[in-house]
Amino acid sequence: MIKAGIIGATGYAGGELVRLLMGHKEAEVVWFGSRSYIDKRYSEVYQNMFQIVDAVCMDDNMEELASQVDVIFTATPQGLCASLINEEILNKVKIIDLSADFRIKDVNVYEEWYKLEHKSPQFIEEAVYGLCEINREDIRKARLIANPGCYPTCTTLSIYPLLKEGLIDPATIIVDAKSGTSGAGRGAKVDNLFCEVNENMKAYGVAVHRHTPEIEEQLGYAAGQEVRINFTPHLVPMNRGILITAYATLKKEVSYEEVKQVYDQYYKKERFVRVLDQEVCPQTKWVEGSNYVDVSFKIDNRTGRIIMMGAMDNLVKGAAGQAVQNMNLMFGLEETMGLELVPIFP
Amino acid sequence: MIKAGIIGATGYAGGELVRLLMGHKEAEVVWFGSRSYIDKRYSEVYQNMFQIVDAVCMDDNMEELASQVDVIFTATPQGLCASLINEEILNKVKIIDLSADFRIKDVNVYEEWYKLEHKSPQFIEEAVYGLCEINREDIRKARLIANPGCYPTCTTLSIYPLLKEGLIDPATIIVDAKSGTSGAGRGAKVDNLFCEVNENMKAYGVAVHRHTPEIEEQLGYAAGQEVRINFTPHLVPMNRGILITAYATLKKEVSYEEVKQVYDQYYKKERFVRVLDQEVCPQTKWVEGSNYVDVSFKIDNRTGRIIMMGAMDNLVKGAAGQAVQNMNLMFGLEETMGLELVPIFP
Amino acid sequence: MIKAGIIGATGYAGGELVRLLMGHKEAEVVWFGSRSYIDKRYSEVYQNMFQIVDAVCMDDNMEELASQVDVIFTATPQGLCASLINEEILNKVKIIDLSADFRIKDVNVYEEWYKLEHKSPQFIEEAVYGLCEINREDIRKARLIANPGCYPTCTTLSIYPLLKEGLIDPATIIVDAKSGTSGAGRGAKVDNLFCEVNENMKAYGVAVHRHTPEIEEQLGYAAGQEVRINFTPHLVPMNRGILITAYATLKKEVSYEEVKQVYDQYYKKERFVRVLDQEVCPQTKWVEGSNYVDVSFKIDNRTGRIIMMGAMDNLVKGAAGQAVQNMNLMFGLEETMGLELVPIFP
Amino acid sequence: MIKAGIIGATGYAGGELVRLLMGHKEAEVVWFGSRSYIDKRYSEVYQNMFQIVDAVCMDDNMEELASQVDVIFTATPQGLCASLINEEILNKVKIIDLSADFRIKDVNVYEEWYKLEHKSPQFIEEAVYGLCEINREDIRKARLIANPGCYPTCTTLSIYPLLKEGLIDPATIIVDAKSGTSGAGRGAKVDNLFCEVNENMKAYGVAVHRHTPEIEEQLGYAAGQEVRINFTPHLVPMNRGILITAYATLKKEVSYEEVKQVYDQYYKKERFVRVLDQEVCPQTKWVEGSNYVDVSFKIDNRTGRIIMMGAMDNLVKGAAGQAVQNMNLMFGLEETMGLELVPIFP
Repeated sequence: MIKAGIIGATGYAGGELVRLLMGHKEAEVVWFGSRSYIDKRYSEVYQNMFQIVDAVCMDDNMEELASQVDVIFTATPQGLCASLINEEILNKVKIIDLSADFRIKDVNVYEEWYKLEHKSPQFIEEAVYGLCEINREDIRKARLIANPGCYPTCTTLSIYPLLKEGLIDPATIIVDAKSGTSGAGRGAKVDNLFCEVNENMKAYGVAVHRHTPEIEEQLGYAAGQEVRINFTPHLVPMNRGILITAYATLKKEVSYEEVKQVYDQYYKKERFVRVLDQEVCPQTKWVEGSNYVDVSFKIDNRTGRIIMMGAMDNLVKGAAGQAVQNMNLMFGLEETMGLELVPIFP
Repeated sequence: MIKAGIIGATGYAGGELVRLLMGHKEAEVVWFGSRSYIDKRYSEVYQNMFQIVDAVCMDDNMEELASQVDVIFTATPQGLCASLINEEILNKVKIIDLSADFRIKDVNVYEEWYKLEHKSPQFIEEAVYGLCEINREDIRKARLIANPGCYPTCTTLSIYPLLKEGLIDPATIIVDAKSGTSGAGRGAKVDNLFCEVNENMKAYGVAVHRHTPEIEEQLGYAAGQEVRINFTPHLVPMNRGILITAYATLKKEVSYEEVKQVYDQYYKKERFVRVLDQEVCPQTKWVEGSNYVDVSFKIDNRTGRIIMMGAMDNLVKGAAGQAVQNMNLMFGLEETMGLELVPIFP
Repeated sequence: MIKAGIIGATGYAGGELVRLLMGHKEAEVVWFGSRSYIDKRYSEVYQNMFQIVDAVCMDDNMEELASQVDVIFTATPQGLCASLINEEILNKVKIIDLSADFRIKDVNVYEEWYKLEHKSPQFIEEAVYGLCEINREDIRKARLIANPGCYPTCTTLSIYPLLKEGLIDPATIIVDAKSGTSGAGRGAKVDNLFCEVNENMKAYGVAVHRHTPEIEEQLGYAAGQEVRINFTPHLVPMNRGILITAYATLKKEVSYEEVKQVYDQYYKKERFVRVLDQEVCPQTKWVEGSNYVDVSFKIDNRTGRIIMMGAMDNLVKGAAGQAVQNMNLMFGLEETMGLELVPIFP
Repeated sequence: MIKAGIIGATGYAGGELVRLLMGHKEAEVVWFGSRSYIDKRYSEVYQNMFQIVDAVCMDDNMEELASQVDVIFTATPQGLCASLINEEILNKVKIIDLSADFRIKDVNVYEEWYKLEHKSPQFIEEAVYGLCEINREDIRKARLIANPGCYPTCTTLSIYPLLKEGLIDPATIIVDAKSGTSGAGRGAKVDNLFCEVNENMKAYGVAVHRHTPEIEEQLGYAAGQEVRINFTPHLVPMNRGILITAYATLKKEVSYEEVKQVYDQYYKKERFVRVLDQEVCPQTKWVEGSNYVDVSFKIDNRTGRIIMMGAMDNLVKGAAGQAVQNMNLMFGLEETMGLELVPIFP
């Protein structure tokens, strides 16, 4: 039985980790870390866990934690994980960081976009970007996983095959993304109040959102060259779900079948990426509560562009689910263990 | 492995049954019945099932079905199940009817409230009302289960202990219920369009809702006398969830502890009924996607009344989850099998 | 042109007051008070007012304000208005208090339910309870108006005629109320975040909500005796709207026509109370954005009770709209001026 | 007093027209046409109109209608208006067609995208595209107005100035649009049920949406050359509101101030187009219920693109509000009459 500790267990991603690990037959949560709720019963913070979780919330004590568990999940604000880890800890315990601290290889890019000094740049090189479908083998051997951001997961998986196969022009990629409000976290802010979000929609972080360089780095690996994109996230009045609509110019004329064949080549064996049938567009509701990413595309011969679409539950494949998938790989378990979740509808 | 057939697999309750049975290790769905979608792939009707369910929808053929499966779930409009079953079928296969056909023992009451002629009154006596927490032993031996209605399940479980123990006056019970819109079904009606339901709330079926006699019958068993209640359901702009707020006059002055003790006595060993802590009110979101019913109460000394509250997912404990719980009991399986679902939040 | 000042202009009720007064041809807002946003442009707080309101937010300075305006609206937390007014101010300016400070005639009841010391009990007697349909004549002559609470407005108007005419037993009244989330205000609290409210429903303040004594006092005037009720509010995932469902035992058998006649007698000439047709239940969406209260009822002969229903926009008739209606009466204007708002649908 | 008739008064756009015209001091609705609800009281179809509208719904009889009214609004499916009008009618009455029949000058393009034969191509040339901010003078003199589509209105107004001034490359325009569900109409379809739309988001009509050629034609006038765009609409779980996010490559390096100056030059005097302050993104809620379009932009120097954003209420400026604005112009009234609606928030 894998003993898991969570730092940041009372955020929405932390709560989802708890939900998933409760259903995982080879792992158990033994440390519910939450600086804001120390000594409070976890099930008073998340009443859905009443009679399911009996533990109380603990402070962030990574040394102590490292001596008690096999894996630590950090579902915390940027900067915290980097400030807490060291060689000794990494020798004792595997770390899956759900924050952005180790996602970007160029520390200068990280510091510029996140306006933070990186406290452990020496581990950036070692950290493995935990996008399982692409870096599976490296993940198996890793001590430190940079669990991908929600938008980057959905975007990269939707675009990767076409870029890798050279079908689209990397200079033309535009990503228009839409997210449910759980992505904004559980902080008490006026902007996230029900009455402000409900019956409303807006773009935010236009041209400056911090997931931009993360997406560009991953797409750059696929393209074999530097990639610059436009990325515009939007806030949608729903709890869960990310939908991305990406546009790029095709390098040559291609048929539906040719493109479909490329997607299938990359994803036919992937359990968590579903390439939808022709003319079927992804819908966030069709993946809710599950670890699936649904992808689809449409060729527009009039403009020579292709529209690539992806839908995903931001808290599952976009955060906690992918973290569990990474854990499974790191511990030699079946990759899908605890993640065989049928999407809930309606 | 139990082979299950579903008649009405493309309604919301039918879809939820499929979701739950996909995660059940001792049962499998072998017949996806849907008269409206015959020969269409099930996963085209419910795209969340893409790459999970490969089957196509089948017509309603109960004879054929009875020869292929061990249990039939009928998630159909009132009247259909009663029109299809007969002794030969009941000798071959167990039936769990999610419609109201066999819930009410007095056929005249059924026919009056449902405006239907009952086609199989001879089986009403035999049918067991599948409220597992109350009729567990009878369910184990049953051939035909009347799976309780959503409102009756939540209402009965919230009120039953106090009525049974004689703490409240049966003549004073008022039940004000609120339901998410999935309870209205998947039929294409203007009243259930997004724009009509969203940002809106209304009562419906005031004083004439057909769950009234079902609740009255069950509460009557608890009270040991005939019970007449007011029951008012309301439509709420959310997908899932039922909340009931019930009022009754206390027969004598009681303390919080005394009432709590009564609830605990009935439910401490029940896996799916959670009696909440003092001052905690049930919220539908805390049980979403799970088989739990959360109950709670508040004594109002100023008026001599008690307010009893219950929250539940109408599609799980209120329909498909309870149906699976009944199946588990009928087949001698662990009662909780396939139902160990952690509520999904947010 | 009436000059109006608002203290608390950046709460939801304050914002609605601004919206309504912008469309009022005989009044203009000259003071946008908001302690939280002093010196900030009002249209940066409420971007809907961009290019409509140019003013900046002002501090709370009642003396200064009293010398500049004809009427002050206080849309502030309980206690503030009572702490600011005095005889000198009341001699200069009319005050419409949207808080609860002057709604309850018995100061002890106020202090007990609100857990506050009342700072101006000497003005309670003089203050007029601003429920226009009932206290119209007194309002015309008032210096100080206690603008009714949202729940009390909807509840009182729905029940008043039947109680006044002696058709129902005052000891049996139960009010089950449901409100959109704007009623919870614009404070940044976790409980009011989108993800906590959306797809959720709960009761709150069960048996202790502070609108209870206000409703009881008003119903008491109708009954001519002390009234004790059960009042249970619920939070609903929508922005605006209050729906109340009230239950009472009929004192004698009555027909639909008799009851309808009673409602019509009280409300036929009322512009803002609409008695719906038989079998039509009020829906909050049908009054959204308007000053209407829609009322309806259903007799249940089985139980001898009547179910009374009312729907209203909590920010309009339940707050800002009624405040403007009061202002109109106090200044001798047409009562409906600025309030001829057609409900917005969908 | 202008007498107005509406054909299609019971759709959402028709209902909004009624709401707006009820508040218009120089116009009155004398014919509520609705083939689906002939002889039914209008206020039974739209209960918000109870005690506001007394009329019953009438059949579509354009000859009769033309003899009774000064202006006819057709808020009907494509093809109907074109099939009903003729020279005689146009000589008697002004027509504002909210359908697409007369929006596109090239009848072949219309027939190809709409899969319909155009029944009155002889009037296409004469018809004026009723985008008031751009075609104001022609509208004043028109007999027949093609009221613009919702997406085209928001898109064109957001992009027009930059294209007209040659700042952006027309070949690079990508429009990612998001709409509330009222845009899908009031037809009873499973896809538009509450439970299917709520907590969900999807793209639809990808690369084939029929507003595409309409947008391209209007942008072509601005560019002075043929324009081909990608246009992708999405369905959002909210009642009202359109948000468009448009991308284009800048033809040269420009500063914020230069672009802002261009927008101001076009819109400073426009009452219904609000160019937002720097770094403020449009939100649909800030314009709800009003005739405003809020526009804003962001230059991304990293990619050389500009992101243009616009928000609007699809039923007001995107349909009924613009229709009234056109009527005002056609009849020589103040352009803003009946449209001075303050956006409703929250």
